[in-house]
Amino acid sequence: MPLGEFALIDRYFRAAGAPRADVVLGVGDDGAILRPPAGHDLIAVSDTLVEGVHFPVGSPAASVGHRALAVNLSDLAAMGATPAWALLALTLPRVEEAWLEDFARGFSALAREHEVALVGGDTTRGPLMINVQLLGFVPAGQGLRRSGASPGDLLCVSGTPGDAAAGLKYIQESDLRSSSSALADAWRTLQRRFEYPTPRVDLGRYLATIASACIDVSDGLAGDIDKMLAASRCAAIIDIDALPRSGALGALVAAGTLSRHEALRLTLGGGDDYELAFCVPAARRATLDELLRQGAVSLIGEVVVLENSATARLGFRSSRPGEALSELLETSAGFDHFAV
Amino acid sequence: MPLGEFALIDRYFRAAGAPRADVVLGVGDDGAILRPPAGHDLIAVSDTLVEGVHFPVGSPAASVGHRALAVNLSDLAAMGATPAWALLALTLPRVEEAWLEDFARGFSALAREHEVALVGGDTTRGPLMINVQLLGFVPAGQGLRRSGASPGDLLCVSGTPGDAAAGLKYIQESDLRSSSSALADAWRTLQRRFEYPTPRVDLGRYLATIASACIDVSDGLAGDIDKMLAASRCAAIIDIDALPRSGALGALVAAGTLSRHEALRLTLGGGDDYELAFCVPAARRATLDELLRQGAVSLIGEVVVLENSATARLGFRSSRPGEALSELLETSAGFDHFAV
Repeated sequence: MPLGEFALIDRYFRAAGAPRADVVLGVGDDGAILRPPAGHDLIAVSDTLVEGVHFPVGSPAASVGHRALAVNLSDLAAMGATPAWALLALTLPRVEEAWLEDFARGFSALAREHEVALVGGDTTRGPLMINVQLLGFVPAGQGLRRSGASPGDLLCVSGTPGDAAAGLKYIQESDLRSSSSALADAWRTLQRRFEYPTPRVDLGRYLATIASACIDVSDGLAGDIDKMLAASRCAAIIDIDALPRSGALGALVAAGTLSRHEALRLTLGGGDDYELAFCVPAARRATLDELLRQGAVSLIGEVVVLENSATARLGFRSSRPGEALSELLETSAGFDHFAV
Repeated sequence: MPLGEFALIDRYFRAAGAPRADVVLGVGDDGAILRPPAGHDLIAVSDTLVEGVHFPVGSPAASVGHRALAVNLSDLAAMGATPAWALLALTLPRVEEAWLEDFARGFSALAREHEVALVGGDTTRGPLMINVQLLGFVPAGQGLRRSGASPGDLLCVSGTPGDAAAGLKYIQESDLRSSSSALADAWRTLQRRFEYPTPRVDLGRYLATIASACIDVSDGLAGDIDKMLAASRCAAIIDIDALPRSGALGALVAAGTLSRHEALRLTLGGGDDYELAFCVPAARRATLDELLRQGAVSLIGEVVVLENSATARLGFRSSRPGEALSELLETSAGFDHFAV
């Protein structure tokens, strides 16, 4: 017998997420009643994952649950916010209890890690699609934006962008799975980076105190930096040699499985990393150096004046004169759902 | 040339909704920055409309935009809240500018009427589906719930439930469109009630000061009252003779186009009305009488003790002994998306 909608919501989602004292009334009424902390601004984000568009058909349910929350945590991180409350709008073609259980487990584990309470939502029948709305806080006036960068600022990124896109490539191209076992380990590491991305929530909170601008890297590093620069009315030079590369991606390049050029395209144009790209005023160089020493972020370039005559906001420099930078630029303009 | 996603969001949604001084940063960054009023609780609701499930394929885009916001305004109304900020997650199979323009117009007109700012969201490619998350406020501790009803409370409903379901019937059954012109007017009135429901926001705000419990009537009057009673651990007797009926629905019954029984089934079991069902303590009868005199709400029954042995929380009484009440009860248990 199929579970009724209400029983279903009850069974899998009433206990999902973290308990929080500021949830006056959670799941089960027409709305949630929440008590915002005094002296704080509320940050609201919303992101949707559609099966076959944002994750491959047949993805593990726990990964889908994890990613549905992670992409929103990443948006909050880019605003410098502390996450608090989530609403989940789940559209399902049918009730599969095993799928729901795994989905809720993936969602809930990440929610608890970040002390996010699931306070409401909606379940409907339809093609598989998950929308999460996430609410969080910053001390009033301290929300981090895309628009604050100035010429002279240092351009940085967290983690190793390109990994998730390489992982997705591995999931989608079955012939890659016949790799030698050493490379299979590297591919599986990258696959995990796609399936279980780590939103940089703590970093974002720290950046709120030192960064001039921030954006989350979801659509591709170059394209997302371009959006931040557009909002800031600046340009930037990216140092190709300074782009971070994970051990796993590096192993594939060393083995000749990926060319250096392909790896660069993944790093600059691949999506789904959920890292943070951000700018730091040069005057805070000492503070940034400390962050750089911890190894969690890389300094990859510099913000410059946007010339009126410029045709692009992004320039690249490389120690290899033969690098086909113009082609790289063209192929890394980010992922635009309606321009494909 | 297809519009890019970002240009699309910009063109149709940046100016949608009302301007508000408490929006520190709206559409266009990773998240919105919002300033909640001091001394208030935040109310968060989320509701999704799927084409072919919640509205007929080919519905007017302005109606879809209106309803996507209206269903959420209705949830906020049921909590006694004042609406403030909306996030829109729109999934579209393709970019049709005329459709988007009409959708935005329908959404925006209702948003402005209720001073709702559109502060963010997400556009993705996929089957047509609209999720809205709406945030609003109540003075701290004054959020209205489903769970506060007590035996002896008076059971009321706003408006004339059943109209929207009759309107949907007219949209879906093409043979009804050959009605005589007098009846065609009635049908079109009902169609409009489905396509452009009126969320009872002002009433909800007033009810926060006098009602013991409230729910919005979205899935069918009897089923939604049943949910309110379940949350309150009570039962109720509904007086069939006291159920409100609109002039339009009445005209169809008078003409024999709908039987009295069919009309009752629509009133008790039809969905999509977005009225409020609520309970008022008998001690506030004088205040309620004033509301009743204004004609916007009807007194339809009484909350009673839930007997341990009871098999149902809803009883019906009628001046017509022949009324098939048990069948009515069965066919009006509300709309459960996964139990169909």
